[in-house]
Amino acid sequence: MSRLKITIGYDGTNYAGWQVQPNGVTVQEVLERVLAKLNGSPVKVHGSGRTDQGVHARGQVAHFDLEKEFSPRDLNRALNALLPEDVRVLKVQKAKADFHARKHAVEKTYCYFIWNGETMPPTERLYHLHVQQKLDLEAMRRAAKMLVGRHDFAAFTANPNRVVESTVRELFDLLVRKRGNEIAIVARGEGFLYKMVRSLAGWLLRVGKGEVSPEETVDILESKIRTARVPTAQPQGLFLWKVSYRR
Amino acid sequence: MSRLKITIGYDGTNYAGWQVQPNGVTVQEVLERVLAKLNGSPVKVHGSGRTDQGVHARGQVAHFDLEKEFSPRDLNRALNALLPEDVRVLKVQKAKADFHARKHAVEKTYCYFIWNGETMPPTERLYHLHVQQKLDLEAMRRAAKMLVGRHDFAAFTANPNRVVESTVRELFDLLVRKRGNEIAIVARGEGFLYKMVRSLAGWLLRVGKGEVSPEETVDILESKIRTARVPTAQPQGLFLWKVSYRR
Repeated sequence: MSRLKITIGYDGTNYAGWQVQPNGVTVQEVLERVLAKLNGSPVKVHGSGRTDQGVHARGQVAHFDLEKEFSPRDLNRALNALLPEDVRVLKVQKAKADFHARKHAVEKTYCYFIWNGETMPPTERLYHLHVQQKLDLEAMRRAAKMLVGRHDFAAFTANPNRVVESTVRELFDLLVRKRGNEIAIVARGEGFLYKMVRSLAGWLLRVGKGEVSPEETVDILESKIRTARVPTAQPQGLFLWKVSYRR
Repeated sequence: MSRLKITIGYDGTNYAGWQVQPNGVTVQEVLERVLAKLNGSPVKVHGSGRTDQGVHARGQVAHFDLEKEFSPRDLNRALNALLPEDVRVLKVQKAKADFHARKHAVEKTYCYFIWNGETMPPTERLYHLHVQQKLDLEAMRRAAKMLVGRHDFAAFTANPNRVVESTVRELFDLLVRKRGNEIAIVARGEGFLYKMVRSLAGWLLRVGKGEVSPEETVDILESKIRTARVPTAQPQGLFLWKVSYRR
């Protein structure tokens, strides 16, 4: 029996998210099916966290145990040979017997991509939210700064009652970057609540459009109540970019 | 009757290229179908040139005549409302009665995108050629310089007998750019032969892999005969980026 850690990229367009669920194919399910084939018996894959329907990943991390022995290199090749093209294993590493992809994650980075221009080239459509109205980046950056730090993010999660645990999280930074027509909102933190990044993006987009002022961000944060004032931005712009572990 | 010029972007993944042909749906066909609906009678669309199956466009240009009168703005909206998501009209302009998208084009720019790294994130797979072996960019740039200028590109077209006209073309520049794992081969010229950009890319890739030396480029060019030494790079990395006209 050996424990392995894998880094996975996926195009979420055709998946009902990461976690196994009754409706639609999920990435976890596809991985478990292929691993069971290689292992000769069922394999349970533990991801660093869920991603929603339509959300992409550049660096999701997961762990699992195999009865059969494989070198990381051979396993990586075998997995990619059997997996569909929109799911790729980017790295396979041997892990300690107690390594846990979710519990041991110390930092996650998400990127939310926006195409800001009157028209969007159709080759960008699957990986960006299209916003025609010119966004005020300086206003977005002012609002973003108010969100950085350790806060109760109850106003920025879709359903705070979904989990019993605390809604306090530390957001290490929240950057708004621009390159040509592409705007990226980069969120780095110790962990994120359900639909938190899409809610942060939804709010920053309202600020960027001038619908609300950056200064209102503090009131929303302090309200600790999710209302329709904070929309959830569409999933196709979101990428789970990186999950970090203490060595 | 009014002549219109449109700039179109398309994701070529699901198309049998630009030009109407018996097998598979083409972009021209999709545009003609939608325009006929708006016009109330058949419309012939004339593109600046063909693109092959699976090739994308960021700035294809076409012209056509409509019997009905539309403002460019209304026509743009109506077209995008009726077209599939993977074909977008990016601009509509009124044109002179004798404007011709192919005959009056004075410059075209194509970009060929390569993902150069051991693994390729699956969200890049539809728009890049994946090359695992580290490419020698300096060698590629040396070879590219030898191809710039007015030459007989018979050795870099898939079937030089396909057309009766000359195989002499002027290549204004051929650049090899790198940004992270992405390498772009940017070809700008007065016009390109059938599969010429993919042949140039195929040759530069062989140079980059060290299979041939940059200096052999001159021999290949001077041979004026297409052989298996020049492969045609896969279509999904290629984008028709821009078509320019004299004002």
